[in-house]
This record gives sequence, structure tokens and C-alpha cells, in this order.
Amino acid sequence: MNQPRIVILGAGYGGMMTAQQLTKQLRADAAHITLVNKHNYHYQTTWLHEAAAGTLHHDRTRMLIRNVINTNRIEFVQDIVKEIQPKDNKVILENGTLDYDYIVIALGFDPATFGIKGIEDYAFSIQSIDTVRKIREHIEYQFASYHYGNEHDDARLNIIVGGGGFTGVEFVGELAQRVPELCQEYDIDRDKVRVINIEGSTTILAGFEDELASYAKQRLESKGVEFKLGYLIKEVKSNDVIVEKKDGGESEEIHARTVVWTGGVRGNTVVAESGFEVDRGKIPVRQDLRSQEYDNVFVIGDCALLTNPENDQPYPPTAQIAIQQSYALAANLKAVIQGQETEPFDYHEKGTVASLGEGDAIGKVGNTLLKGFTASALKKIIDDRYLLLLGGPSLLLKKGKFNFLQ
Amino acid sequence: MNQPRIVILGAGYGGMMTAQQLTKQLRADAAHITLVNKHNYHYQTTWLHEAAAGTLHHDRTRMLIRNVINTNRIEFVQDIVKEIQPKDNKVILENGTLDYDYIVIALGFDPATFGIKGIEDYAFSIQSIDTVRKIREHIEYQFASYHYGNEHDDARLNIIVGGGGFTGVEFVGELAQRVPELCQEYDIDRDKVRVINIEGSTTILAGFEDELASYAKQRLESKGVEFKLGYLIKEVKSNDVIVEKKDGGESEEIHARTVVWTGGVRGNTVVAESGFEVDRGKIPVRQDLRSQEYDNVFVIGDCALLTNPENDQPYPPTAQIAIQQSYALAANLKAVIQGQETEPFDYHEKGTVASLGEGDAIGKVGNTLLKGFTASALKKIIDDRYLLLLGGPSLLLKKGKFNFLQ
Repeated sequence: MNQPRIVILGAGYGGMMTAQQLTKQLRADAAHITLVNKHNYHYQTTWLHEAAAGTLHHDRTRMLIRNVINTNRIEFVQDIVKEIQPKDNKVILENGTLDYDYIVIALGFDPATFGIKGIEDYAFSIQSIDTVRKIREHIEYQFASYHYGNEHDDARLNIIVGGGGFTGVEFVGELAQRVPELCQEYDIDRDKVRVINIEGSTTILAGFEDELASYAKQRLESKGVEFKLGYLIKEVKSNDVIVEKKDGGESEEIHARTVVWTGGVRGNTVVAESGFEVDRGKIPVRQDLRSQEYDNVFVIGDCALLTNPENDQPYPPTAQIAIQQSYALAANLKAVIQGQETEPFDYHEKGTVASLGEGDAIGKVGNTLLKGFTASALKKIIDDRYLLLLGGPSLLLKKGKFNFLQ
Repeated sequence: MNQPRIVILGAGYGGMMTAQQLTKQLRADAAHITLVNKHNYHYQTTWLHEAAAGTLHHDRTRMLIRNVINTNRIEFVQDIVKEIQPKDNKVILENGTLDYDYIVIALGFDPATFGIKGIEDYAFSIQSIDTVRKIREHIEYQFASYHYGNEHDDARLNIIVGGGGFTGVEFVGELAQRVPELCQEYDIDRDKVRVINIEGSTTILAGFEDELASYAKQRLESKGVEFKLGYLIKEVKSNDVIVEKKDGGESEEIHARTVVWTGGVRGNTVVAESGFEVDRGKIPVRQDLRSQEYDNVFVIGDCALLTNPENDQPYPPTAQIAIQQSYALAANLKAVIQGQETEPFDYHEKGTVASLGEGDAIGKVGNTLLKGFTASALKKIIDDRYLLLLGGPSLLLKKGKFNFLQ
């Protein structure tokens, strides 16, 4: 037996779908496939902002890996990746070492803090089940503490979200829905609570049409969200955030004990620490998703820096792209094993929808712009489509979102 | 109109039942009655340990005062009592002043810390809706933080309950039920969590027969509760508790971020600060529930120090006693207004039940000792009986505990 050993690092969108596609595209005896992940579960990163706000239970966003992948075909190893040694074809795990012939790096993102003081120490990131449970409970704990003792510190009721991109806007949309519930639970006047989105640009949701971005802003403002556009976060402290007007340099201190940073992502820090040449923590890859340095290293999703040949811009770090890459990656990995030519990744934009809280969203499908209820229903259909791709109808039934009419 | 002005301070068991009894025993034009309370709701103190553990929602334990008392007969003032001036027949509130002809002090308890270092700063008390919501969320926040970052601090999973009396034991019973749920919610191994009850005596539940106390201890131990009997808490720090063997003096440091002190109560501190002669913060009262110093000052419940003539011991601070006192107090207040003789308070022990978590309890009714399911059902019936006394069948239906069979 001279089976090539394939090791997939990470069970996010890219890793899970690659594992599944490899079992479909390769014969059972064609390779030995190992999937490594820190947890024994997979979660849907694009739903995490809901779990962070507390509007959706985190168990709705996760599933046991062994319930989704074919464990007869894929060996699952629950461990933490400490280092990749691409020159030696080795992965160092916390509890062992793996040798590989081909590796798929699908380790996802870490927050990019751009050196802003205090973000690492005092801001949260919407990144994993562990971080979103903490965010949810941190916020609730602040509300629970407000009437405790004689303190009544308004900083406990102020929530600052750094970044007015996709995740930041979707998160404040969920907070707008959650805050009234928390106010009722803890006898707090809704008017005392501030949810503030800080964004350096003068508009939110860069990449969306102005019409959609304005609609989103107005809808969220009507639910009590404040936007500070054209402002940068200069420093995060334990109880305060210092923001500064981007051009004027005028600065302001906002008392807040909850700061969630959604202002940028980089590739998982393990990648840079493993000695790969990186740009924002991402490995530059060829169009066939192999690293430019190593022929047997494939990279997918947020760890991959891939240029879209249509506009010469790097692809953004989205679930949709990671999922589409998995099909190309599996086909190319098969081709390399069989000594055939690889094919370039070809992206098909299927449309993008940003949620604004239950029952409201904006979206774009081709040239069609959508708002409100229709966009919200479409968002759920997109979420459900992934479950169908990953685990078929049984997974969809178990984990899908079917309340289209709400 | 020369209506006497009656002011009742506090809407706990004693204050609420006194208000209700006065409306029944006095004619509408016989007095002007004012009830002062910090919140616009009344809560059942004896259920608070459940809300603190998170096994019962705090809204189940509270009700709007205006939904229970007859607001045509009683003027409700939501305010905080700052000082009573008994020589001037005045009460100073945070936002005003009230003059009275008769006052009923029903301000409940504050924790008695016996000078133990750090209790005021670092330990919680099961005392009000505000404190139990905080305890519930504090515990949950510790669990939510355990897997956040790389810290894994076991002190987050250790809960220390100081005091093995009624409240302490009932609380660890609820925690024993709640901990497995929290472990599931936050992916934590149950064996990592410690719930430790610290008690200076060599037995828990002083006042109960040995047979019942042993049963309680065994049942709770079987659910994972640890008892350190014959130990005293010497100091509480932010992450640690120092305990010392009562006789040997051998000391030990236990890492724990949650400490709940149930080791003793005193009368509300406002009472001592108002210049009353007090013993453990309580006002010594005559058998007719009037203060020994002032003929127009009535005291009830945890603020009253009343000697039981049958055994020359002070009555303990229980709901049952406060409720029974309300009938005597109202009758005596009416007698005083009408220039008649007062009657001594006559206590009728109706039985006592301590819960050990859902479906289990111990109790004593007359000479009958009860354990397990029967005692647990009886506990609910006692809880329900109060609702019936206070607000009749409609309140019972709204707030009662009907799951006798669980």
C-alpha cells in the first residue's frame, strides 16, 4: 500500500467541505485522509454573531464532526495545531505529530488589530463558539450588574462594535433585537443602553450599493443603534474606548465595558509562525489553490491570499468563497495525486445578503437589490443551502432555519 | 378628618401582609396607610436561592405590588428609606420625607458578616432580585469564561457557599441541579466543578433532627456537593477563600471566584443607623410587637428581636414568623388606635421544610419527620399557601408552584 497521506487542518467551511469533496472525488483506497480540529464540532461562522448577541443558541450553529463526515473514510483527530513544518512535511500538534504527503491548510482567521492599543486585551472577537458564548455572557453580566450595589455604572450598558462591515452590521442588528429583552430581564430603561458602531469610512457595508447601505443604516438607527462614521478607534481600555475623527483628529472617550472588534481579519497566526511567507497572515496561493512556495501545500478560505483575475483584487474572506474553493481544491488535489493538470479556481458570485436582525436584511443577487423581508428569507435559504451541501437533507432538517415567515 | 397616618416601611413578607391585614381589620376611613418600598415589586425571599442558582426565573418569585395590595386603601410610595427619626415621627426617604403617627418597620435583613475579612467586598448574599440575578449571571459568566482564551482557571468552576443553615443547604441543593446544565452549556466536565459548603458546626441544618440532617447531607453529597463541616471562613479574596479548622486551627486556601455567604443575617442596617437601640441590628420589641423604646413604633420580621416566652430564645428570622406576626401586628395597631389593650404575639409552628433540589426535601410537621418526595410536595404547598393568604386564588394561579409530581 502506497497511499498518499492527506492532512486537512481545520474543520471550518473550507476544511469540512474539502473533506467531504475528497471522499466523493477520490476512491476509498486512493488516499489516507486525516482531519485535525481543535474541537470535536464544526460551527457555522456566519451565524456566530447571532450566538454572540444571544438571539440564537450556539448549539444551533454547531454539529459534531463525526455526525457529518464519513468517519470510515476520514480519520478525525481532535488536537490543536502548534506548527506546520512544510519543508519536512510535518504538522506539530499539541499532543503529537503528523506526517503528510499533501496538506490542506484551512485554519480560518484571527482578528486583525492593526496595532490598535488594547484590542487584544479588552476587545472581543466573533470567532468561535468559545468567544461568542463569552461575549453573550459578558454583555448579560454587565446588565445583571447594573442594579447590583449602588454603582449604576452606565459603562456597563454601552456596547461598542468596531467596524461597520458585514459582521459588525449584522451583529448590531442582532443586538438591537436582544437589548430590549435584556432591559426587561434586568429592569433597565432601554434609553439608558447605547449600541454604537464605529467605522472609519463614511458609509457602512462597503461593497454594497449606497441604496442598500443607507437602508441598513436607517433601519438600524430606528432600532436604536448609533453609528459613528468617519471615526477610528484609537485605544481600548477596560472601561473606555478612545475614538478619533478620521480627518479632524478630534478625539472622544466613550465609557463602555463591552467592545467587540469586527474591523478586520487576518490568516490564523499559526501560519505566519510556521515560517510561511505571508501577507496579513495569509499564504499567497496560485490559481489552483496551492501555495506559491510548496507544490504539496493547499490553502483554502481565510488563510489563502488569492487574486481574483477579473479585478486583480484579493478574494474577500467569506464562507461562500471558502465553500466554492473546496470543490476546486479537491479536484486539484486529485489531479496532483494522479499526475494530471490542475485547473484554476473559478468563482461564481451567488449573491450576498446581510441580516439586520430578525425579519430584515439587505441583499444583492446579480443585479437585483433586495431589502426587508425578501432579503431576510433569502438569507435563511442561503444558510440552509450550505447545510444541504455539507450534510444532505438530514443535516438540513436538524440544523436549518425554517422560520422564513418571521 | 383626623385620620392617623400609618407608614409601613418595606414590602417583604411582613410589610405586605401587614398592609393587607390592616385593610381587612380597619375600616377605610380609620387610617391613612402608606407603604414604602425600594422597588415596585414584592418578592418571595424564600424562593430566592432558586433564582440565584438559575433553576427558577426571578420573575416567578416577584409580583407588582399594585397588583396585590388594594391601592384604593393603601398609598404606595416607591422610594428608598434613608433614616427613621422616631423622636420626630418622621421617615427620611431618598426623595422626600414622610410624617407618621404609627410606623411599621418591616425592612428585612442585611447579611451579618461577623467581621470576616473580605465578605462585604467579595461574597454575594441571597437577598433580593438584584443580588440573585447577579449571582446567577456571575456563576454563568465564570463557566462561559473557562474555555475563553488559554487560561482554564479552575477557580472559575469552584463555588463556595458559606453557612450550612437553611439557606446555604437549600442553595447548594439548587446548584447541584444547575451545575450539570451549565457544564453542558459550556462544554465543561462535571468532575471539574466543585460546590463546597463550609459550616462551623459539625452538622448542617441546626434545629433539624440528626436523622433529617444526615439524610440531607448524604443526598447532596450524592449529587456532588462537598461539605467542610467544623470549618470557618477566615477571609474571602477575589479568587480565594481561606478556611480554618475550627478547633485545630489548620488552615487551607481554596481557589474560588464565586463565594455566596449565607452564614447569618442581621436587621437592615438603616435601623441601627437611625439610632434605635439594637442587638444584631434588630430592635428589641415587646410581646405586642411594639419597640421597647417607642409606643408608636411597631417592628416585624427580621428587624424585630422578640423573645419566645416558651423557651426564652429569640424567634428566628423566618418568613413563617413574619407572616404570623402580621396578623398580631395589625390587630394590635388597631387596638392602639382605638385605645384598647394589645395582645401578645402567639406563635404556632406549622412545620418546616428545607428543599434539597427538585423533588427532594426534608421536613418536620409537629413530630412527624418527612423526607424526599413527600417533603418536597409539602414545601410547594407551603409556598403556595402564602400566595393564597396574600393575594387569594388569582395570585396563587399566577405565581404558584404546581409541579408537585416532579
